[in-house]
Amino acid sequence: MDILFEHITAVTMDEPGTVLTDAYVGVANGSISYIGSTPPKDKPRRVISGARKILMPGLCNAHVHSPMTLLRGYADDYDLQTWLFGHILPAENRMTDEAVYWGARLAMMEMIAGGTVSFTDMYDHMLAVGRAADESGLKANLTRALLCDGPEYSFKTDPRAAETRELIDMYHNRDGGRLKVDVSIHAEYTSNRALWEAAAGFAAERGLGMNIHLSETRREHEECKDRHNRQTPARVMYRAGVFDVRTTAAHCVWLENDDVEMLGEKGVSVAHCPVSNAKLASGAANVPLLLERGVNVALGTDGTASNNSLDLFGEMKTAALVGKLTRRDPEAADALTVLRMAATGGFISQGRADSGRIAEGFSADLIMLDFDKPHLTPCHNVVSHLVYAARASDVCLTMARGHILYENGGFLTLDAERTMAETRLAAKRLAEG
Amino acid sequence: MDILFEHITAVTMDEPGTVLTDAYVGVANGSISYIGSTPPKDKPRRVISGARKILMPGLCNAHVHSPMTLLRGYADDYDLQTWLFGHILPAENRMTDEAVYWGARLAMMEMIAGGTVSFTDMYDHMLAVGRAADESGLKANLTRALLCDGPEYSFKTDPRAAETRELIDMYHNRDGGRLKVDVSIHAEYTSNRALWEAAAGFAAERGLGMNIHLSETRREHEECKDRHNRQTPARVMYRAGVFDVRTTAAHCVWLENDDVEMLGEKGVSVAHCPVSNAKLASGAANVPLLLERGVNVALGTDGTASNNSLDLFGEMKTAALVGKLTRRDPEAADALTVLRMAATGGFISQGRADSGRIAEGFSADLIMLDFDKPHLTPCHNVVSHLVYAARASDVCLTMARGHILYENGGFLTLDAERTMAETRLAAKRLAEG
Repeated sequence: MDILFEHITAVTMDEPGTVLTDAYVGVANGSISYIGSTPPKDKPRRVISGARKILMPGLCNAHVHSPMTLLRGYADDYDLQTWLFGHILPAENRMTDEAVYWGARLAMMEMIAGGTVSFTDMYDHMLAVGRAADESGLKANLTRALLCDGPEYSFKTDPRAAETRELIDMYHNRDGGRLKVDVSIHAEYTSNRALWEAAAGFAAERGLGMNIHLSETRREHEECKDRHNRQTPARVMYRAGVFDVRTTAAHCVWLENDDVEMLGEKGVSVAHCPVSNAKLASGAANVPLLLERGVNVALGTDGTASNNSLDLFGEMKTAALVGKLTRRDPEAADALTVLRMAATGGFISQGRADSGRIAEGFSADLIMLDFDKPHLTPCHNVVSHLVYAARASDVCLTMARGHILYENGGFLTLDAERTMAETRLAAKRLAEG
Repeated sequence: MDILFEHITAVTMDEPGTVLTDAYVGVANGSISYIGSTPPKDKPRRVISGARKILMPGLCNAHVHSPMTLLRGYADDYDLQTWLFGHILPAENRMTDEAVYWGARLAMMEMIAGGTVSFTDMYDHMLAVGRAADESGLKANLTRALLCDGPEYSFKTDPRAAETRELIDMYHNRDGGRLKVDVSIHAEYTSNRALWEAAAGFAAERGLGMNIHLSETRREHEECKDRHNRQTPARVMYRAGVFDVRTTAAHCVWLENDDVEMLGEKGVSVAHCPVSNAKLASGAANVPLLLERGVNVALGTDGTASNNSLDLFGEMKTAALVGKLTRRDPEAADALTVLRMAATGGFISQGRADSGRIAEGFSADLIMLDFDKPHLTPCHNVVSHLVYAARASDVCLTMARGHILYENGGFLTLDAERTMAETRLAAKRLAEG
């Protein structure tokens, strides 16, 4: 046994939401090898005391554009068109592989420090993101957004498709599946049917998943219907075969009832991004309806230009608050439901069946939180605290596949000082134009 | 000069929202004695380096029930009636002075650690809260909620009014005005006109402010109109003379247009509590309209049973998100507007004209945040970061009237271990009934 957590409160995230107190949890060879109320027979190489600590599965950020950390706080409080076309896209067009690499590393540090052990990324310059993800020790599903202008499209000659293939060659199933590559269609409004069909066919042929922005804004949703004979973005993607592979659809704010049925039927996961959707005033996804229809719901932060954090604890609290507020129902989006989105739903969306639970044989993707603090005292209910009172900064240990990536403020895989210095420089260059 | 912050970024919170970089800020005798871009002539007794640090006015929590920390996470995700009558009130009825004292201390520790330097409290057992506030070093406006059953009311014989008078004798203007006592009417639906008039008259006679819950829920608002010939809660309070003194009205979710005009005309401050209002699904106050009509808007966390934090950084982010979401306008509730609510609006509501700004002669109520962290890197815009990316845990120093209450995780006025231990015991007793 490599590591034993002893006398710890373990939030297992099993079906009934069992919380074990004064438990022993052992890790060996990257997996959870022991759970019990008594010490294991195996002698552990290291013992970690769990007094006033909480152990739970690490969280999964199901929708992020990691290099956008470089644009954190660069353009706030604008309408979407001004934000995107006046500020964000011009800066993104100035990004280099090197800038993306440092921005992605910074994002990974923030995620690691905040208890995130896996993420699904969609961006440009994805080989640079892959390099950073490889070094970080995190799990990741990497996707290169495909898009095109006009009615023509050739997957064979598209340089973005070529980048997807290169990304697969370099990083798909790297390190025993820690890294994966999925295919990505940026969105309905930035592509055409030829692209959707080619991307879906390629994903099916290679056994890859799919990542797409879907019905984020009312405008996008309505304009699609105008273009496509009243068919919604979900309907056109469904018809193009996009949902025939494991798909994560981000945002889904403006889905119609038929869309929700379709997502449920096809097993599409929704990456709910409540902070970004509120900050850009896009609206709020109807999560209770999605769950009622059997749709797997995960949580995503989106990029830091519209959040401006990669903090799934903050995201959980906002998911609960927005869920209650928009339904005018305080029983909606209860704590355990929201915790499941961040701790379980994300891994389902990534096709990682061995993550998201403290159970023997599961991947040792674990985080420990220090509850010995005024804002977490007293503790009537651990699950409530994780959603309504805990902060990313309460995470004192982050482990992916048995490897500790972060402990008591220190990063074990990434150089914090260098990364922050390089991103400051890169961000300055981007802002100066 | 007692303390000099050097080479610091100072968010002054003056009218235009000036942010000084590489500034010097000096503190002497509890006040800000120097601001400049060069060192002062006075030799400081202590120098604090401001490299990658932000200095700003400490925040004001304009609506809190501090002893409710004991019920943090005790009852979540219930409808308001079940929450209040089935869980919260029965537990509150078991509270003792001693429990309230420790619960209030715990709240003050959480506020201090999160950069709050002043708060307005409304609760029962207020002498115990006063004792804790006195020890904490925080500024506070203490109020004992008045309420009554039935149509009769006598201020002279009401034991709660007697507690208000005792609270005044003990704590009003204590420590040079650090503590103040205001009068409180719990709410329209828990009292009658005789109480309102007596409380308003008493406040006017003694030169005290007023603290009231106003139009928090639709039910409360509509039931008042049914009882009072279609008059809103704001209207009946206006008519009873309540708003003739400096008044803080908490929540104000269901105000009508005429109510807003009335609040503007009378100089009533609104304590906006977006997290609590969302968590209980009460709704969202129309802050843009309030501001348009010249109403001073402050921020409050409400009690931890409906939040479940006393974290004004989280509250600011939620205020911005809820503001944009409910108005469907990403330009609503911009960062500087929201920051003003927490850093300036609260002090106005408390009648503390010498707080809420970094300017010579103002009270040295200052907080310092450490921005040398991944989630605050890069920093294109300090004000954006304070609202959208910073967390309570980024506060590394809290000072009230020149006294440091908290520095680098350590509390200087309150004993953290003892307070947490006592509150755990008290909370257990409350839960056991």
